[in-house]
Amino acid sequence: MSKARVNSSRLNDTIQSTCTKWGAIQDSTGMRRLTLSADDKGVRDWLVEECKSLGCSIKVDEMGNIFAIRPGLDPSRHAIAMGSHLDTQPAGGRYDGILGVIAALEVLRTLNDSNVTTTCPLALVDWTNEEGARFPGAMMSSGVWSGKSITPLEACHEIIDVEGVSMKSALKDIGYLGDTPCSHEANPLECHFELHIEQGPELEKTGKSIGVVTAVQGMKWFAIRVTGVEGHSGTTPMPARSDALVTASRLIAAVRDAAKATGLGVATVGVIKSDTSSQATIPAGVDFIIDVRCSTDEMVDELSASILESFDKIITEEDNGTKYVVQRTWGLPESIFHPDCIDAVRRAATEEVGEDQIMDMKSRAGHDSAWTSRVVPTSMIFVPSKDGVSHNPNEYTSPEHCALGAQALLDAVLHYDEMVSRSSQ
Amino acid sequence: MSKARVNSSRLNDTIQSTCTKWGAIQDSTGMRRLTLSADDKGVRDWLVEECKSLGCSIKVDEMGNIFAIRPGLDPSRHAIAMGSHLDTQPAGGRYDGILGVIAALEVLRTLNDSNVTTTCPLALVDWTNEEGARFPGAMMSSGVWSGKSITPLEACHEIIDVEGVSMKSALKDIGYLGDTPCSHEANPLECHFELHIEQGPELEKTGKSIGVVTAVQGMKWFAIRVTGVEGHSGTTPMPARSDALVTASRLIAAVRDAAKATGLGVATVGVIKSDTSSQATIPAGVDFIIDVRCSTDEMVDELSASILESFDKIITEEDNGTKYVVQRTWGLPESIFHPDCIDAVRRAATEEVGEDQIMDMKSRAGHDSAWTSRVVPTSMIFVPSKDGVSHNPNEYTSPEHCALGAQALLDAVLHYDEMVSRSSQ
Repeated sequence: MSKARVNSSRLNDTIQSTCTKWGAIQDSTGMRRLTLSADDKGVRDWLVEECKSLGCSIKVDEMGNIFAIRPGLDPSRHAIAMGSHLDTQPAGGRYDGILGVIAALEVLRTLNDSNVTTTCPLALVDWTNEEGARFPGAMMSSGVWSGKSITPLEACHEIIDVEGVSMKSALKDIGYLGDTPCSHEANPLECHFELHIEQGPELEKTGKSIGVVTAVQGMKWFAIRVTGVEGHSGTTPMPARSDALVTASRLIAAVRDAAKATGLGVATVGVIKSDTSSQATIPAGVDFIIDVRCSTDEMVDELSASILESFDKIITEEDNGTKYVVQRTWGLPESIFHPDCIDAVRRAATEEVGEDQIMDMKSRAGHDSAWTSRVVPTSMIFVPSKDGVSHNPNEYTSPEHCALGAQALLDAVLHYDEMVSRSSQ
Repeated sequence: MSKARVNSSRLNDTIQSTCTKWGAIQDSTGMRRLTLSADDKGVRDWLVEECKSLGCSIKVDEMGNIFAIRPGLDPSRHAIAMGSHLDTQPAGGRYDGILGVIAALEVLRTLNDSNVTTTCPLALVDWTNEEGARFPGAMMSSGVWSGKSITPLEACHEIIDVEGVSMKSALKDIGYLGDTPCSHEANPLECHFELHIEQGPELEKTGKSIGVVTAVQGMKWFAIRVTGVEGHSGTTPMPARSDALVTASRLIAAVRDAAKATGLGVATVGVIKSDTSSQATIPAGVDFIIDVRCSTDEMVDELSASILESFDKIITEEDNGTKYVVQRTWGLPESIFHPDCIDAVRRAATEEVGEDQIMDMKSRAGHDSAWTSRVVPTSMIFVPSKDGVSHNPNEYTSPEHCALGAQALLDAVLHYDEMVSRSSQ
């Protein structure tokens, strides 16, 4: 067990007070802290000041990612990172992402309190726009930093929100368009650890306290556009209709049915948009997005194929002139984490809660760690989510579990630091 | 046959030139002239000037309805009205509503050219927000004028568009918040004639040129809200989901299925909205609107009941915790037109094209005439719609049919005027 012990009440007070101050949804513990919003600026400014007061230097890169660096004994080393994100879904909770950053801050505070200096520098990282809720494209800025995303810096800068504001101008507006290159080559890290809530029911169901995350499941998004023929709702006889919304509705039900029938993974339609805003018009065009996730890339492909097969069958059955086109918009292949980081997490977790209280698991949600794992050793720590609920104001993780996770994060970082310094002696 | 003959090319030139100028969708004959928009203001200002130049006096009422009055020989009489609307759907055509107003203008021009003065004054009426596309609620302002709509003046004034602009401030902004009371009692008419495109395929299919409209079918709108539980698209297992969009999709398909299976009429969902704008979130709430129309009020009720029955069945089958609530938002009972007006139209149409070329029919779309018919004698004239298409940029009625309709409108008005003056002698 580490001698440097995180302060559970300080950690949880910081989570609650910063959430209350920046982005709270009234009369609930829900959060609406969209990336690069005024609330996001508020919490970023606070975080930068806190880290400075702990002796960190601050770098902000071209995607607004914040790197707060606590010096190590060996300045020639890259920093061991503890990263996650402070943005939330439009109606999210207080833990997804936020726990990882605030716990990293608690680690820095604890190390200061205990006068511990690591060999490597440490970096607290706040990754911009992990949620992809305001600017479409989840884990956007860790993706750019990794150089492995299909969407490079310039393209990300041009992405607009529903009000037509570009990412670049939003970064500028809140003062977080930095000049550090957003690149793992120009701005490298030694490795990346991330504490996160599970967002699923496994830990709770099995009565475990800490998940040692070994991989992130594969995922793909598909944009579907269904087209038909516009017409008057009163005068177009039923048999003469080419109704894009009726066809889209059947396709959306089929997405669910295919995921259930194959048992390969999960598939979701969250966003739908009809071309018409008129009640008296038969819709001629409907757009929706399918999110497919499975344990392996092969299963993602198999489930996606099964969904599209059922689409073709429905189009044939409907036989009303409606059509669809599919566009692959985004994907994240399965991410395999690094044995050294996994070992550091496992050792830290076992020391803290014992072997019986931990389990190895795959993440079924995407995380910034999925991108960092492609260029530096990476692993994650999961703590339980009440009822498995996330992306929802009812998201909840107990103060005890938050503190356990933060302690495991601190110890994993120390173990990794020890390993690095030993191997270079 | 009337001695006063409408000028076909002047009529059609006026339709095309005013559509090109105010509200044309680029590179098509489509129209986007939302009520009280800048384009609507443009065409209104032009119409007022044209009518004034023909010797009309202008009244604008509290809903922005424009009444252009051409004096008659007997100033104690109420005006015989020729009304319709200049607004369109977001992606509509050049004839729905527009033909009726521009044809009324052509009637006034022709009567001036032929030096015909009627006993009753004549009124050209442009009814505000017939489409209900910007401010929800079709045939809104004729409804207020009739005093029979469930939505009175003050409530209409407070209705907002998607940008939060109220109807009242939109009226003020374009200078059409008039001080004439919007009331058939304070601002009465003698009767109401309306020339309109059929918006359906019957006339074309049977090879007829003019429809004598005897009634408007009944219609009801229902707002449906489906609720489930928000969740993360990656981590919530399929069997644990309470997905509002999947349930809504099944309900929307059922609306179509019920209309087809019962054969009672038509039912349409044009508008759908999911609470979430995040691809990675299982939607917790979805809203949509059902538009039900049948020949009789009984059939509307029967089809509506059949739809809601199938909803209950689906909710039971899904058994995933999703629920729905239904709210009746708008309705228009079946409208029976007046024998005197129907006779005037039938006589005019028969004189123009012969008995073989006309047919009695019910309107399957709602019209301002449905409201006027509740307080003054009313009838309508239909001309063919190519392929029955409407609420669509491809909406088309030939110049010949437009002119036939305008001539029938002129003659129907003269026949009615003659009948009124004869009966009062």
